Amino acid sequence: MMTSKRLTAILLSLAVGAAATAAHADAVKYRRLVMRAIGGHMGAIVQIAKGAVPHTGHMLTHAKALEATIGLVKEAFKNEAMAKGSRATEKIWSDWTGFTGKADNAAKAANVLVGTIENNGNVGGAIKGLGKACGACHKAYRKKKKKR
Amino acid sequence: MMTSKRLTAILLSLAVGAAATAAHADAVKYRRLVMRAIGGHMGAIVQIAKGAVPHTGHMLTHAKALEATIGLVKEAFKNEAMAKGSRATEKIWSDWTGFTGKADNAAKAANVLVGTIENNGNVGGAIKGLGKACGACHKAYRKKKKKR
Repeated sequence: MMTSKRLTAILLSLAVGAAATAAHADAVKYRRLVMRAIGGHMGAIVQIAKGAVPHTGHMLTHAKALEATIGLVKEAFKNEAMAKGSRATEKIWSDWTGFTGKADNAAKAANVLVGTIENNGNVGGAIKGLGKACGACHKAYRKKKKKR
Repeated sequence: MMTSKRLTAILLSLAVGAAATAAHADAVKYRRLVMRAIGGHMGAIVQIAKGAVPHTGHMLTHAKALEATIGLVKEAFKNEAMAKGSRATEKIWSDWTGFTGKADNAAKAANVLVGTIENNGNVGGAIKGLGKACGACHKAYRKKKKKR
Protein backbone atom coordinates (compact mmCIF):
# COMPACT_ATOMS: atom_id res chain seq x y z
CA MET A 1 0.00 0.00 0.00
CA MET A 2 1.02 3.57 -0.59
CA THR A 3 2.56 5.36 2.38
CA SER A 4 0.80 8.52 3.41
CA LYS A 5 4.08 10.36 2.83
CA ARG A 6 4.20 9.23 -0.77
CA LEU A 7 0.51 10.03 -1.23
CA THR A 8 1.08 13.53 0.12
CA ALA A 9 3.96 14.00 -2.30
CA ILE A 10 1.79 12.94 -5.23
CA LEU A 11 -1.13 15.12 -4.20
CA LEU A 12 1.22 18.05 -3.67
CA SER A 13 2.78 17.64 -7.12
CA LEU A 14 -0.70 17.44 -8.65
CA ALA A 15 -1.75 20.59 -6.82
CA VAL A 16 1.39 22.43 -7.91
CA GLY A 17 0.79 21.26 -11.46
CA ALA A 18 -2.81 22.45 -11.38
CA ALA A 19 -1.76 25.80 -9.93
CA ALA A 20 0.89 26.17 -12.64
CA THR A 21 -1.70 25.36 -15.32
CA ALA A 22 -4.09 27.93 -13.86
CA ALA A 23 -1.29 30.52 -13.75
CA HIS A 24 -0.44 29.74 -17.37
CA ALA A 25 -4.07 30.07 -18.40
CA ASP A 26 -4.23 33.44 -16.62
CA ALA A 27 -1.04 34.63 -18.31
CA VAL A 28 -2.45 33.64 -21.70
CA LYS A 29 -5.78 35.30 -20.91
CA TYR A 30 -4.05 38.51 -19.93
CA ARG A 31 -1.88 38.78 -22.99
CA ARG A 32 -4.83 38.01 -25.24
CA LEU A 33 -6.73 40.88 -23.60
CA VAL A 34 -3.74 43.14 -24.23
CA MET A 35 -3.64 42.07 -27.89
CA ARG A 36 -7.42 42.46 -28.05
CA ALA A 37 -7.15 46.09 -26.98
CA ILE A 38 -4.35 46.66 -29.48
CA GLY A 39 -6.41 45.04 -32.22
CA GLY A 40 -9.41 47.20 -31.40
CA HIS A 41 -7.43 50.41 -31.58
CA MET A 42 -5.56 49.38 -34.73
CA GLY A 43 -8.75 48.28 -36.46
CA ALA A 44 -10.42 51.55 -35.50
CA ILE A 45 -7.46 53.53 -36.88
CA VAL A 46 -7.68 51.67 -40.19
CA GLN A 47 -11.45 52.25 -40.42
CA ILE A 48 -10.92 55.98 -39.90
CA ALA A 49 -7.92 56.17 -42.24
CA LYS A 50 -9.78 54.59 -45.13
CA GLY A 51 -12.64 57.01 -44.63
CA ALA A 52 -15.15 54.32 -43.68
CA VAL A 53 -16.22 56.45 -40.72
CA PRO A 54 -15.94 60.22 -40.25
CA HIS A 55 -14.23 60.10 -36.85
CA THR A 56 -10.89 61.63 -37.83
CA GLY A 57 -10.88 63.32 -34.42
CA HIS A 58 -10.63 59.88 -32.79
CA MET A 59 -7.45 58.84 -34.55
CA LEU A 60 -5.01 60.41 -32.08
CA THR A 61 -6.76 58.88 -29.07
CA HIS A 62 -6.52 55.41 -30.60
CA ALA A 63 -2.91 55.95 -31.65
CA LYS A 64 -1.85 57.09 -28.17
CA ALA A 65 -3.68 54.19 -26.51
CA LEU A 66 -2.10 51.85 -29.04
CA GLU A 67 1.40 53.15 -28.34
CA ALA A 68 0.91 52.82 -24.58
CA THR A 69 -0.53 49.32 -24.88
CA ILE A 70 2.13 48.01 -27.27
CA GLY A 71 4.54 49.11 -24.55
CA LEU A 72 3.06 46.37 -22.34
CA VAL A 73 3.53 43.53 -24.82
CA LYS A 74 7.03 42.44 -23.81
CA GLU A 75 6.13 42.10 -20.13
CA ALA A 76 2.81 40.46 -20.95
CA PHE A 77 4.64 37.75 -22.89
CA LYS A 78 7.65 37.50 -20.58
CA ASN A 79 6.48 34.48 -18.66
CA GLU A 80 6.37 31.54 -20.96
CA ALA A 81 2.91 30.12 -21.16
CA MET A 82 1.50 27.89 -23.80
CA ALA A 83 -2.15 27.09 -23.62
CA LYS A 84 -4.60 25.27 -25.79
CA GLY A 85 -5.92 27.60 -28.43
CA SER A 86 -3.14 30.13 -28.03
CA ARG A 87 -1.46 31.06 -31.29
CA ALA A 88 1.79 32.06 -29.60
CA THR A 89 4.75 29.94 -30.73
CA GLU A 90 7.60 28.60 -28.55
CA LYS A 91 9.91 30.72 -30.69
CA ILE A 92 8.87 33.80 -28.69
CA TRP A 93 10.89 32.46 -25.75
CA SER A 94 13.63 30.59 -27.61
CA ASP A 95 14.26 33.78 -29.61
CA TRP A 96 13.39 36.32 -26.91
CA THR A 97 15.84 38.95 -28.25
CA GLY A 98 14.29 38.70 -31.70
CA PHE A 99 10.80 38.91 -30.25
CA THR A 100 11.49 41.91 -28.05
CA GLY A 101 13.29 43.64 -30.93
CA LYS A 102 10.20 43.27 -33.10
CA ALA A 103 7.95 44.41 -30.24
CA ASP A 104 10.17 47.48 -29.82
CA ASN A 105 9.88 48.18 -33.54
CA ALA A 106 6.09 48.09 -33.30
CA ALA A 107 6.18 50.47 -30.30
CA LYS A 108 8.43 52.83 -32.25
CA ALA A 109 6.11 52.68 -35.26
CA ALA A 110 3.15 53.53 -33.01
CA ASN A 111 5.12 56.46 -31.62
CA VAL A 112 5.81 57.63 -35.17
CA LEU A 113 2.08 57.44 -35.93
CA VAL A 114 1.24 59.58 -32.89
CA GLY A 115 3.79 62.20 -33.97
CA THR A 116 2.59 62.10 -37.56
CA ILE A 117 -1.03 62.70 -36.55
CA GLU A 118 -0.01 65.51 -34.22
CA ASN A 119 2.05 67.18 -36.94
CA ASN A 120 -0.48 66.57 -39.70
CA GLY A 121 2.00 64.48 -41.66
CA ASN A 122 1.64 61.44 -43.91
CA VAL A 123 -0.70 59.46 -41.66
CA GLY A 124 -1.35 56.78 -44.27
CA GLY A 125 2.36 56.10 -44.54
CA ALA A 126 2.74 55.93 -40.76
CA ILE A 127 -0.17 53.47 -40.50
CA LYS A 128 1.43 51.35 -43.21
CA GLY A 129 4.69 51.36 -41.25
CA LEU A 130 2.87 50.36 -38.08
CA GLY A 131 0.98 47.59 -39.84
CA LYS A 132 4.25 46.28 -41.23
CA ALA A 133 5.91 46.32 -37.79
CA CYS A 134 2.93 44.52 -36.20
CA GLY A 135 2.86 42.02 -39.05
CA ALA A 136 6.57 41.24 -38.77
CA CYS A 137 6.07 40.11 -35.18
CA HIS A 138 2.88 38.17 -35.95
CA LYS A 139 4.48 36.47 -38.93
CA ALA A 140 7.51 35.33 -36.94
CA TYR A 141 5.86 34.41 -33.63
CA ARG A 142 2.21 33.62 -34.18
CA LYS A 143 0.67 30.47 -35.52
CA LYS A 144 -1.76 30.76 -38.40
CA LYS A 145 -5.44 30.70 -37.54
CA LYS A 146 -6.93 27.26 -37.81
CA LYS A 147 -9.75 26.89 -40.28
CA ARG A 148 -12.99 25.91 -38.61
CA MET B 1 -42.24 47.97 -70.79
CA MET B 2 -40.27 49.95 -68.26
CA THR B 3 -39.05 53.34 -69.40
CA SER B 4 -35.31 53.85 -69.18
CA LYS B 5 -36.01 56.82 -66.91
CA ARG B 6 -37.87 54.61 -64.46
CA LEU B 7 -35.17 51.95 -64.69
CA THR B 8 -32.50 54.56 -63.93
CA ALA B 9 -34.47 55.71 -60.91
CA ILE B 10 -34.75 52.16 -59.61
CA LEU B 11 -31.07 51.41 -60.17
CA LEU B 12 -30.14 54.68 -58.51
CA SER B 13 -32.27 53.96 -55.47
CA LEU B 14 -30.72 50.49 -55.20
CA ALA B 15 -27.24 51.97 -55.43
CA VAL B 16 -28.05 54.56 -52.78
CA GLY B 17 -29.51 51.83 -50.62
CA ALA B 18 -26.42 49.68 -51.05
CA ALA B 19 -24.16 52.62 -50.23
CA ALA B 20 -26.20 53.36 -47.13
CA THR B 21 -25.99 49.73 -46.08
CA ALA B 22 -22.22 49.78 -46.58
CA ALA B 23 -21.96 52.99 -44.54
CA HIS B 24 -24.05 51.40 -41.79
CA ALA B 25 -21.89 48.29 -41.81
CA ASP B 26 -18.80 50.49 -41.50
CA ALA B 27 -20.32 52.45 -38.61
CA VAL B 28 -21.15 49.20 -36.82
CA LYS B 29 -17.68 47.82 -37.52
CA TYR B 30 -16.07 50.95 -36.10
CA ARG B 31 -18.05 51.05 -32.89
CA ARG B 32 -17.45 47.35 -32.34
CA LEU B 33 -13.72 47.98 -32.66
CA VAL B 34 -14.03 50.79 -30.11
CA MET B 35 -15.91 48.47 -27.73
CA ARG B 36 -13.37 45.74 -28.45
CA ALA B 37 -10.53 47.99 -27.31
CA ILE B 38 -12.52 48.97 -24.22
CA GLY B 39 -13.23 45.32 -23.46
CA GLY B 40 -9.57 44.41 -23.83
CA HIS B 41 -8.45 47.11 -21.41
CA MET B 42 -11.22 46.39 -18.93
CA GLY B 43 -10.58 42.65 -19.00
CA ALA B 44 -6.88 43.26 -18.50
CA ILE B 45 -7.59 45.53 -15.52
CA VAL B 46 -9.77 42.84 -13.93
CA GLN B 47 -7.10 40.17 -14.50
CA ILE B 48 -4.52 42.36 -12.77
CA ALA B 49 -6.85 43.41 -9.95
CA LYS B 50 -7.71 39.86 -9.00
CA GLY B 51 -4.03 38.98 -8.92
CA ALA B 52 -4.23 36.54 -11.81
CA VAL B 53 -1.18 38.19 -13.35
CA PRO B 54 1.58 40.17 -11.64
CA HIS B 55 1.42 43.21 -13.93
CA THR B 56 0.24 45.79 -11.41
CA GLY B 57 2.44 48.30 -13.23
CA HIS B 58 0.19 47.95 -16.30
CA MET B 59 -3.00 48.95 -14.54
CA LEU B 60 -2.64 52.71 -15.01
CA THR B 61 -1.86 52.39 -18.72
CA HIS B 62 -5.01 50.34 -19.28
CA ALA B 63 -7.11 52.69 -17.14
CA LYS B 64 -5.93 55.78 -19.03
CA ALA B 65 -6.50 54.12 -22.40
CA LEU B 66 -9.91 53.00 -21.18
CA GLU B 67 -10.89 56.49 -20.07
CA ALA B 68 -9.78 57.99 -23.38
CA THR B 69 -11.57 55.33 -25.41
CA ILE B 70 -14.84 55.50 -23.46
CA GLY B 71 -14.73 59.18 -24.36
CA LEU B 72 -15.25 58.14 -28.00
CA VAL B 73 -18.34 56.01 -27.39
CA LYS B 74 -21.00 58.70 -27.81
CA GLU B 75 -19.68 59.85 -31.18
CA ALA B 76 -19.10 56.29 -32.32
CA PHE B 77 -22.78 55.50 -31.71
CA LYS B 78 -24.14 58.86 -32.83
CA ASN B 79 -25.15 57.79 -36.30
CA GLU B 80 -27.91 55.28 -36.04
CA ALA B 81 -26.89 52.02 -37.60
CA MET B 82 -28.43 48.66 -37.06
CA ALA B 83 -26.76 45.72 -38.69
CA LYS B 84 -27.21 41.99 -38.62
CA GLY B 85 -25.40 40.57 -35.64
CA SER B 86 -25.13 43.89 -33.82
CA ARG B 87 -26.38 43.77 -30.27
CA ALA B 88 -27.15 47.49 -30.16
CA THR B 89 -30.82 48.21 -29.55
CA GLU B 90 -32.95 50.93 -31.19
CA LYS B 91 -33.38 52.38 -27.71
CA ILE B 92 -29.92 53.93 -27.98
CA TRP B 93 -31.32 56.42 -30.47
CA SER B 94 -34.89 56.69 -29.20
CA ASP B 95 -33.45 57.43 -25.74
CA TRP B 96 -30.29 59.26 -26.78
CA THR B 97 -30.21 61.43 -23.63
CA GLY B 98 -30.41 58.35 -21.44
CA PHE B 99 -27.72 56.61 -23.47
CA THR B 100 -25.31 59.52 -23.44
CA GLY B 101 -25.91 60.02 -19.72
CA LYS B 102 -24.91 56.44 -19.04
CA ALA B 103 -21.91 56.75 -21.37
CA ASP B 104 -20.87 59.87 -19.44
CA ASN B 105 -21.19 57.97 -16.17
CA ALA B 106 -18.89 55.27 -17.48
CA ALA B 107 -16.35 57.88 -18.58
CA LYS B 108 -16.51 59.49 -15.12
CA ALA B 109 -16.04 56.10 -13.46
CA ALA B 110 -12.98 55.46 -15.64
CA ASN B 111 -11.63 58.84 -14.63
CA VAL B 112 -12.17 57.95 -10.96
CA LEU B 113 -10.25 54.70 -11.52
CA VAL B 114 -7.30 56.58 -13.05
CA GLY B 115 -7.21 58.94 -10.08
CA THR B 116 -7.57 56.11 -7.59
CA ILE B 117 -4.63 54.21 -9.10
CA GLU B 118 -2.49 57.36 -9.18
CA ASN B 119 -3.28 58.09 -5.53
CA ASN B 120 -2.96 54.52 -4.38
CA GLY B 121 -6.58 54.44 -3.22
CA ASN B 122 -9.24 51.75 -3.15
CA VAL B 123 -8.64 50.41 -6.66
CA GLY B 124 -10.97 47.44 -6.17
CA GLY B 125 -13.83 49.77 -5.28
CA ALA B 126 -13.12 51.99 -8.28
CA ILE B 127 -13.09 48.98 -10.62
CA LYS B 128 -16.41 47.85 -9.17
CA GLY B 129 -17.82 51.32 -9.78
CA LEU B 130 -16.60 51.25 -13.36
CA GLY B 131 -17.99 47.78 -13.96
CA LYS B 132 -21.34 48.92 -12.64
CA ALA B 133 -21.36 51.99 -14.89
CA CYS B 134 -20.43 49.91 -17.95
CA GLY B 135 -23.03 47.31 -17.03
CA ALA B 136 -25.80 49.89 -16.61
CA CYS B 137 -25.34 50.96 -20.23
CA HIS B 138 -25.05 47.41 -21.54
CA LYS B 139 -28.11 46.33 -19.62
CA ALA B 140 -30.23 49.15 -20.96
CA TYR B 141 -29.02 49.33 -24.56
CA ARG B 142 -27.52 46.00 -25.56
CA LYS B 143 -29.30 42.84 -26.60
CA LYS B 144 -28.41 39.64 -24.80
CA LYS B 145 -25.96 37.32 -26.54
CA LYS B 146 -27.70 34.69 -28.59
CA LYS B 147 -26.98 31.15 -27.59
CA ARG B 148 -25.26 29.22 -30.36
